[in-house]
Amino acid sequence: MPSLAEIFSPRGVAVVGVSQVDETSFGRGVVLSLKRAGFPAIYPVNPKYTELLGLPCYPSLPAIPGVVDHVVVSIPAESALALLDDCAAKGVKSVHFFTAGFGESGYAERAELERAMLLKARAGGFRIIGPNCIGLFVPKSRLATSTGAPMEPGSIAFISQSGGHAENIPFHTDPRGLRFSKVVSYGNALDVDEAELLQYLSQDPDTEIIAAYIEGVRDGKRFLGALKEAAARKPVVIYKGGTTEAGKRAAHGHTASLSSSVAVFDGLCRQLKAIRVDDVEELVDVLVALRFIRPLPRGNGIAVVGTGGGPSVLASDEMEKAGLHMPRLSSETQAELRQFLPLAGAIFSNPVDATNLVSPEAISKTMSLLGSVPDIDMLIYHLGFHPASRWGHGRFSVETSLQSTVDALRQAPKATGKPVLLALCPAPDLSGMKDFLAAQEAFVAAGFPVFHSLRQAARAMARIIAWNRE
Amino acid sequence: MPSLAEIFSPRGVAVVGVSQVDETSFGRGVVLSLKRAGFPAIYPVNPKYTELLGLPCYPSLPAIPGVVDHVVVSIPAESALALLDDCAAKGVKSVHFFTAGFGESGYAERAELERAMLLKARAGGFRIIGPNCIGLFVPKSRLATSTGAPMEPGSIAFISQSGGHAENIPFHTDPRGLRFSKVVSYGNALDVDEAELLQYLSQDPDTEIIAAYIEGVRDGKRFLGALKEAAARKPVVIYKGGTTEAGKRAAHGHTASLSSSVAVFDGLCRQLKAIRVDDVEELVDVLVALRFIRPLPRGNGIAVVGTGGGPSVLASDEMEKAGLHMPRLSSETQAELRQFLPLAGAIFSNPVDATNLVSPEAISKTMSLLGSVPDIDMLIYHLGFHPASRWGHGRFSVETSLQSTVDALRQAPKATGKPVLLALCPAPDLSGMKDFLAAQEAFVAAGFPVFHSLRQAARAMARIIAWNRE
Repeated sequence: MPSLAEIFSPRGVAVVGVSQVDETSFGRGVVLSLKRAGFPAIYPVNPKYTELLGLPCYPSLPAIPGVVDHVVVSIPAESALALLDDCAAKGVKSVHFFTAGFGESGYAERAELERAMLLKARAGGFRIIGPNCIGLFVPKSRLATSTGAPMEPGSIAFISQSGGHAENIPFHTDPRGLRFSKVVSYGNALDVDEAELLQYLSQDPDTEIIAAYIEGVRDGKRFLGALKEAAARKPVVIYKGGTTEAGKRAAHGHTASLSSSVAVFDGLCRQLKAIRVDDVEELVDVLVALRFIRPLPRGNGIAVVGTGGGPSVLASDEMEKAGLHMPRLSSETQAELRQFLPLAGAIFSNPVDATNLVSPEAISKTMSLLGSVPDIDMLIYHLGFHPASRWGHGRFSVETSLQSTVDALRQAPKATGKPVLLALCPAPDLSGMKDFLAAQEAFVAAGFPVFHSLRQAARAMARIIAWNRE
Repeated sequence: MPSLAEIFSPRGVAVVGVSQVDETSFGRGVVLSLKRAGFPAIYPVNPKYTELLGLPCYPSLPAIPGVVDHVVVSIPAESALALLDDCAAKGVKSVHFFTAGFGESGYAERAELERAMLLKARAGGFRIIGPNCIGLFVPKSRLATSTGAPMEPGSIAFISQSGGHAENIPFHTDPRGLRFSKVVSYGNALDVDEAELLQYLSQDPDTEIIAAYIEGVRDGKRFLGALKEAAARKPVVIYKGGTTEAGKRAAHGHTASLSSSVAVFDGLCRQLKAIRVDDVEELVDVLVALRFIRPLPRGNGIAVVGTGGGPSVLASDEMEKAGLHMPRLSSETQAELRQFLPLAGAIFSNPVDATNLVSPEAISKTMSLLGSVPDIDMLIYHLGFHPASRWGHGRFSVETSLQSTVDALRQAPKATGKPVLLALCPAPDLSGMKDFLAAQEAFVAAGFPVFHSLRQAARAMARIIAWNRE
């Protein structure tokens, strides 16, 4: 049997089920994605055409002259077995079925069909990815099934029982600086499953952090063994879908998974030192923290800095609700702050809120001072993107103050050895979003972990600290 | 003493502390805001100028020839008492102090100054708003202190101890269709306080829904009496800031408030039939639901409809975690769905997920069918804004399908009498945000309650149903 390492770096890819006419067909999208990614050997297969999207098109797999290691399939389920005979004849290493309507459909004959497919794969010496998934995204190998996929390789691997999450997470997290080594959407997990993927990724030199979206596992014991091994080597972040009654039902209909309760799963994750998260948002936030915060804090003391009394009160509540601690500043430290922060409309006790906390000088001094307080383990600076405001007072401007703010905040961790997090809050309108995205880009480029609210930052850090302390 | 009704509709406004040179001065911003709002009688006051921003500028309050009902003040705290003598001489009705650095600063002499100001106001027969706040925003009276304020009047009143929230919430919620009757930022509540405001708003014919951000109350008994009276007449939504230790400390530094614990406050809200929320996000979501859902559901059964297996599983978990119930569809209903929804990649049990659930026909049929199920009390349709995707399959397009989707969803509540909610998920990039904002605008214009995630919708509805059942 070919190894997963071989499967992740195919020499040639055949795409079966491409359409000349239907612009929304998956196969057509895969060909376009591979072309866009610069994959060198793409073979569309469809007996109706001799050319497709500027490439020679072949009537069948055996008719392809070159080496085919990987096959992407989106023809109807009924034709799956015949196709697998062709795959065996061609000597392929892996077959990815985008095609759905198998075991997850609830029909017994479709589950039977899945079993017959697996037997064919075993006999033919190749592996199956899926069915009912969007397959492999490996930037380093120029392998992608989505034209929106960001192709810069990185150090995060993501395995996902949902094709939607597999497609959306790399796209959604690209502006926050996350880059991926491998993303595997494995759907019904007929052959390649979460346990095997975890085992492989724990050894994969290109992967430093592992993330997983799992609805249910087929072989609990094997999965837990693989999780234990992986979590002992690398941070593993798991979002388990289908933890409520309705979620379980949806998961069963989605990928034929039988889900367990959140309490059981939570206990296992603690025991095995994996980081369990509650939803996709938290999954992403924890990845951002793991990727950009070095070293990770062990203590939960945080200082909150920025302008605005309401947001500062809210911040305080969010931090403490999430389980972080905001140490009260000593009267000496408060007195030092009062020397350069204006009294009016200010809070000095932690949170620290003052109208001039948008000026590089005030930011630098404040962060350095707070960073030197022993029970403060990390600092967070918050910045909102507000309307073109009435008085500009205490307002951040992308044009005039973005780069100087980035530079001022970049000094702080160097000076104190304590990480600085950013909470940038998106705006409700297009002009505000432009500023927000520009600021995010600058902070991410400077290596900051950027969160989209204080609440999200607090939740992610609380998870990481609990894990890092154990 | 003038009534609050008189204070909310001043005939003339003087702005004391305007600057010709400092473009970020609050007073200058207020003059610009009033001009932009079309307020008819604006009087800048500054002895240094004779003209400011195209208006005659006066050396002092008594020098103004016209009627001055309301005075906006941003001169330093030290000059407050002398200014109040001028206010008395001029016969004003209300004085709003933007100026901060009073009781909240922690200095005893500043708290003493506040008390002296209150005595002057009592003697002079006028009221004080603040200090340490951004004051009054009354669209109907063309009264605003922020140039970003959306000036279309509406039926929601918002009182806020935070100027930031008072300024940001109308701006942030404008794209979601919220419009305001009055927004009052009352800061330190030296004179006009939350109890008096609640009492007034409960009788205000322009106000149908009352929202409040409160850090602490000075007179608990009076406040609870006013809250009881208001909540008996109109929905009252309260976000209480400063519920954690750090939050209390911040609130004290912010507006000199002494906060109580969340448990105590929660119990009181239940007893008095007010809707307590946990944060600003939830405050806004509950307002959107109250404003756009008629009648409000009493049962907690919800059907979730949209495309994407992962999001559907996530949806199910979010709904049940928040306390809503997703009734499992009967096999008869599922069979009916299968007649027009494709089998592959679909979930029929509730959530309902199928690739063609972006076509108006499939949406209409699905929503009508689900709306007729007895234990489904409301429906939610979810829509993500994704990358220019590889295959377009199951993808929503603003250009080609927005209006038909709006129309299809608009039929559903008419046909079944059950409310339809929208969960539109923002995109990470500018092009996706453009689509998101266009879709939001169309759905809001058609009268839909729009939420930015399934989780947010679920939390808000769970709050409202609990309140509506009592």
